[in-house]
Amino acid sequence: MINQAMAQGRTRDFGIRIGILPTGSQNAITDVAGIKVGHLTKIEGTNIRTGVTAILPHGENLFQEKLPAAVFVGNGFGKLAGVTQIEELGNLESPIILTNTLSVAAGITGIVSYTLSQSGNENVQSVNAVVGETNDGYLNDIRGRSITEADILTAIHSASSGPIAEGNVGAGTGTVCFGFKGGIGTASRQIPASLGGYTVGVLVQSNFGGVLQIDGVPVGVELGQYSFSEHITSADGSCMIIVATDAPVLERNLKRMAQRAMMGLAKTGGIASNGSGDYVIAFSTFGKNRIPHQNPTLKALHHEELANEDMSALFLAVIEATEEAIINSLFAAQDMEGKDGRKINALPKEKVLEIMRKYGRIE
Amino acid sequence: MINQAMAQGRTRDFGIRIGILPTGSQNAITDVAGIKVGHLTKIEGTNIRTGVTAILPHGENLFQEKLPAAVFVGNGFGKLAGVTQIEELGNLESPIILTNTLSVAAGITGIVSYTLSQSGNENVQSVNAVVGETNDGYLNDIRGRSITEADILTAIHSASSGPIAEGNVGAGTGTVCFGFKGGIGTASRQIPASLGGYTVGVLVQSNFGGVLQIDGVPVGVELGQYSFSEHITSADGSCMIIVATDAPVLERNLKRMAQRAMMGLAKTGGIASNGSGDYVIAFSTFGKNRIPHQNPTLKALHHEELANEDMSALFLAVIEATEEAIINSLFAAQDMEGKDGRKINALPKEKVLEIMRKYGRIE
Amino acid sequence: MINQAMAQGRTRDFGIRIGILPTGSQNAITDVAGIKVGHLTKIEGTNIRTGVTAILPHGENLFQEKLPAAVFVGNGFGKLAGVTQIEELGNLESPIILTNTLSVAAGITGIVSYTLSQSGNENVQSVNAVVGETNDGYLNDIRGRSITEADILTAIHSASSGPIAEGNVGAGTGTVCFGFKGGIGTASRQIPASLGGYTVGVLVQSNFGGVLQIDGVPVGVELGQYSFSEHITSADGSCMIIVATDAPVLERNLKRMAQRAMMGLAKTGGIASNGSGDYVIAFSTFGKNRIPHQNPTLKALHHEELANEDMSALFLAVIEATEEAIINSLFAAQDMEGKDGRKINALPKEKVLEIMRKYGRIE
Amino acid sequence: MINQAMAQGRTRDFGIRIGILPTGSQNAITDVAGIKVGHLTKIEGTNIRTGVTAILPHGENLFQEKLPAAVFVGNGFGKLAGVTQIEELGNLESPIILTNTLSVAAGITGIVSYTLSQSGNENVQSVNAVVGETNDGYLNDIRGRSITEADILTAIHSASSGPIAEGNVGAGTGTVCFGFKGGIGTASRQIPASLGGYTVGVLVQSNFGGVLQIDGVPVGVELGQYSFSEHITSADGSCMIIVATDAPVLERNLKRMAQRAMMGLAKTGGIASNGSGDYVIAFSTFGKNRIPHQNPTLKALHHEELANEDMSALFLAVIEATEEAIINSLFAAQDMEGKDGRKINALPKEKVLEIMRKYGRIE
Repeated sequence: MINQAMAQGRTRDFGIRIGILPTGSQNAITDVAGIKVGHLTKIEGTNIRTGVTAILPHGENLFQEKLPAAVFVGNGFGKLAGVTQIEELGNLESPIILTNTLSVAAGITGIVSYTLSQSGNENVQSVNAVVGETNDGYLNDIRGRSITEADILTAIHSASSGPIAEGNVGAGTGTVCFGFKGGIGTASRQIPASLGGYTVGVLVQSNFGGVLQIDGVPVGVELGQYSFSEHITSADGSCMIIVATDAPVLERNLKRMAQRAMMGLAKTGGIASNGSGDYVIAFSTFGKNRIPHQNPTLKALHHEELANEDMSALFLAVIEATEEAIINSLFAAQDMEGKDGRKINALPKEKVLEIMRKYGRIE
Repeated sequence: MINQAMAQGRTRDFGIRIGILPTGSQNAITDVAGIKVGHLTKIEGTNIRTGVTAILPHGENLFQEKLPAAVFVGNGFGKLAGVTQIEELGNLESPIILTNTLSVAAGITGIVSYTLSQSGNENVQSVNAVVGETNDGYLNDIRGRSITEADILTAIHSASSGPIAEGNVGAGTGTVCFGFKGGIGTASRQIPASLGGYTVGVLVQSNFGGVLQIDGVPVGVELGQYSFSEHITSADGSCMIIVATDAPVLERNLKRMAQRAMMGLAKTGGIASNGSGDYVIAFSTFGKNRIPHQNPTLKALHHEELANEDMSALFLAVIEATEEAIINSLFAAQDMEGKDGRKINALPKEKVLEIMRKYGRIE
Repeated sequence: MINQAMAQGRTRDFGIRIGILPTGSQNAITDVAGIKVGHLTKIEGTNIRTGVTAILPHGENLFQEKLPAAVFVGNGFGKLAGVTQIEELGNLESPIILTNTLSVAAGITGIVSYTLSQSGNENVQSVNAVVGETNDGYLNDIRGRSITEADILTAIHSASSGPIAEGNVGAGTGTVCFGFKGGIGTASRQIPASLGGYTVGVLVQSNFGGVLQIDGVPVGVELGQYSFSEHITSADGSCMIIVATDAPVLERNLKRMAQRAMMGLAKTGGIASNGSGDYVIAFSTFGKNRIPHQNPTLKALHHEELANEDMSALFLAVIEATEEAIINSLFAAQDMEGKDGRKINALPKEKVLEIMRKYGRIE
Repeated sequence: MINQAMAQGRTRDFGIRIGILPTGSQNAITDVAGIKVGHLTKIEGTNIRTGVTAILPHGENLFQEKLPAAVFVGNGFGKLAGVTQIEELGNLESPIILTNTLSVAAGITGIVSYTLSQSGNENVQSVNAVVGETNDGYLNDIRGRSITEADILTAIHSASSGPIAEGNVGAGTGTVCFGFKGGIGTASRQIPASLGGYTVGVLVQSNFGGVLQIDGVPVGVELGQYSFSEHITSADGSCMIIVATDAPVLERNLKRMAQRAMMGLAKTGGIASNGSGDYVIAFSTFGKNRIPHQNPTLKALHHEELANEDMSALFLAVIEATEEAIINSLFAAQDMEGKDGRKINALPKEKVLEIMRKYGRIE
């Protein structure tokens, strides 16, 4: 019997401890100070099961105070908007919006409206809107394109720091992961002081397939639910991954951190299948490295950054936090019925915990 | 005195012959059989000077019959939508829309609507919309975001083969190039039979700066209008470049062709300045290489492609056609008055022709 | 007590079964027909512990009959020679040599000599030698640069099909992995006929760090030997990974396969630390896709390739084979004493098997 | 009649002034303070026509004091060693060696020997040797691989600041460019104080084809010597380009500068043909941005860098200096007879000057 605590607990509440590094206080991307996250969950009638998740990297005017950022493409079957400008200029100037595949335009419209209307942006004529997506079309009437500009703005304006709702919320409302109900998940890692003391936070929108492993345990095979098993021939879907840190890291090393997120995804059994849009966006909130939009001509920027050889602990933190964020999305998600009466069940947690016990991972 | 013929003539009509390869019959991207181009020009009141240009790579259902394609980023300060999926999958499945920077969302919406509504696409739930842009905010009230989904659809549905209107039309309505009125330009090259006999077509949306050269002649300096001269401190702007060929070329060599387009841009004096969004999208219409969306499982695709060592003439063709397409955009553009009474003059053709004569380029 | 069988058995012999796909008959890269592998192991005096491993993709003149190929850079702190030409031209024209970091020049010299001297190559003036490396400087006097051109040629000429020696051989003679003795490892996967029936083979030179997991079991933590534990502050090292397949896959999808190898590495607990040179070279031996060096001018190549949507099973195969190849390298390696009396112990297999039993992975 | 002055003059001495920016005092890469260049010219018997050019970015121990650096691949048909590590770590730790295609191994050996033997490098076990090449096999017995480690070391040790010999020297001894004798060329630009006052220097090893233009004048066509003319069907060859600056620019913007060098090459009529290995290596000597090899753990690096929007003048400087360096290589080169009695003539300067006059470029 799954009791209420079980239904609501996060992965760690059940004794599952992924990795060797400690978590931040919330075990969430918001452990990186200043980050806010907002969800707009859209469940309407029998066929609309979608939503929006907004990540605000800091609380000021992001267009005027950009952050060093990078993107890594794990598998580019997706429509992430804003990639090339982040890569060329090395910075992020908009909130990050996650939504469904056919609502990227709404996401861009929302970000542009938000940015143009911010105080201080009266003369802005160009905005690099960053909008990621996964395809929730199994449970959601995605062709109906129900997400509106207003929904995007609501998600942005509702963003807050602190704990983050996971599972069937925001951009995770209609997603499916390893054949179970996926959704939003988050986690963080705190690097020991001897390794720098920095925080790394990750947020995912999980919507992909493969052969599920939880902390190394072959849960998918044990449950008889995995890609390329007798009755499942595909592994498609996608995963959007946001990586944040307060460490003084610039765009090149942020890209390296982003690349490691795919290694965390790999440890859950994801395979970055052909149809998967797997993207990682990484940014650093380190205050001195903010990039002013209106910098006086020829005034050099003064940056502080960790040496390459001090990056490895951050890499490990990204891997662990990504793995746990994905598993958290599965633990938080609940059964969902949607389009045309289709139903996706949540991870059967009681059975999963039995499996975890069988494999000596929990008591 | 600029007579009517001069006002309407294309570059070649004045005796300026860029490069060594012959043009196709129209000297336009539409010389590549099957390609259609449509413009929606939006000139309203005193402040709206913008538009849409749609390029349809072939006349059938492009989503169902994708084409090999690639993107090269000359300078990524831009918002081109659709890049990563083209790169990952090696194909193009949507019309290409060009418009202004803040109307990319409208472009995506239009392409998605167009694709979802096409016969045969009833089950489509994912569309990789390709939308490029340059910033026409000097002449156009770009913050007003006047381009609508309907405008995009109008541009798509009005597309036709044959000659292409150049200059202040479509996505070129409000653009500025080398300080003169820019716009849409096109050109093509016909490779001699001994080198393959293929056609290469290019279309540009010119909106960038630098030190203008026309067929090698220092026109910008002679006219006293160039970047980093005494009174001009910036060179910003952007250039969208579409490269098409009927040669049997797949994505890797299409990317190499795309890269050469920036070499053609260089020959006009463009410098890919920091603020320039310079992107090249290349595709091949070669019939046998179409990629069916609904390919039977495990049925291999049979491709035909030129060997690497047969690519060089195509590279030269791209360089020449890009250079000429940009110059064509300048020759075709006319004076434009726009937002807040600002005015951008067309290239002073009479003076330019004098300069070309002075430098022995025309008689 | 570790008996002889244990000392020599491969991972699978102990009941450890990584992944869900079956192996090829040898569980080695040589299961891809035509591939040959040769080792030159150099153990001399107390300080030389190094070697060379040569992979010959097919048995004919590879320069004259090139293969589609791609490279993925997992972490580019390494000296892999030949990358950009493989990427630009999409093909491989030389054997692949693996050796130590400071012997890349010897590797290039050997490949060039080999190629220039092959019958049919009398006019060859350019060879893209592909030489990968990891740093065996802990056990080997790497500054002594003891590998010679003759050693490279010996490795090439000794290459054979069939079973492959693993562990402390060839380029793996002096390597260290997760703090234990690393080395050469190999594995393969056979895709079920319903998914294409193709073979994927992987060979690794393991020399990296992290937090060792074997088939998901936290072996490194259980043994108290892992990066960022109390007494280990670094995770450096490198991993060269060669991926081969007989499936009809061209360079773009080979690159996607290569990228998945890093996901297999991730599952062993590798983190692609800052100092790690992690590279994946992937090629396809599919006969019809060979690229003749002397192709008649303008004669198009006719390729056969799997559609994108048929790639996912191959991705899974790469992940599984890479994971197992790395673990195989650890199981095969034996204690090694080297430079300045330093000693690296082999994985303590008896203890490892106990841990595997404790975690329910073997009986 | 070509008099002695003509034979030895540089392009500018004849009144040809490429671009709008002023040159540095030497009009050479050595105008960037601290850079040294050395040549080893190897002309032996009738068949050896090759050499080595070494570029030392600064005069101290480069391995211990690395510089921010980047590589742009214009066309990757080449064997440039060291690319991926520069890209991953963002820095350069070795001199740059240019030589012939089959002598890259000698170049690596030389750099490794040089670095290992430097005072302070006694414990170095890994060196990212950067060695570029072009193919001088038309005039040189390249298969003979006559360049030795000692030659490399001689080039390095002979490096000096000040004027640089151009033409048939060092790595340019046997190269061919646009069908004429190519070689080493260099140029520089001084950015006006109002745009930052920085210096950009370029050095090229010219060995490529196309349709030669000198300062926009169609010299190749006028001389009847150009690719894809009646009697010339290929355009192959290569160009190595080194870009240096004293501006505070880090790896991302150095890569953008490197990319612009190909735009300068384009203006000479180069087309980056299939067989061309066109690579650009860019580095900044700005003192405060040096990267210490032995940085205390967790001590952040403090960098100073120009804002993106201050980069455009540097882009223009790269384009101009590259164009002029290539033309300088042609003006400096002299007739060369080599392998099997083959002869390549120098650019016929008297005729060229006539053409320049005809096109109004000089008096």
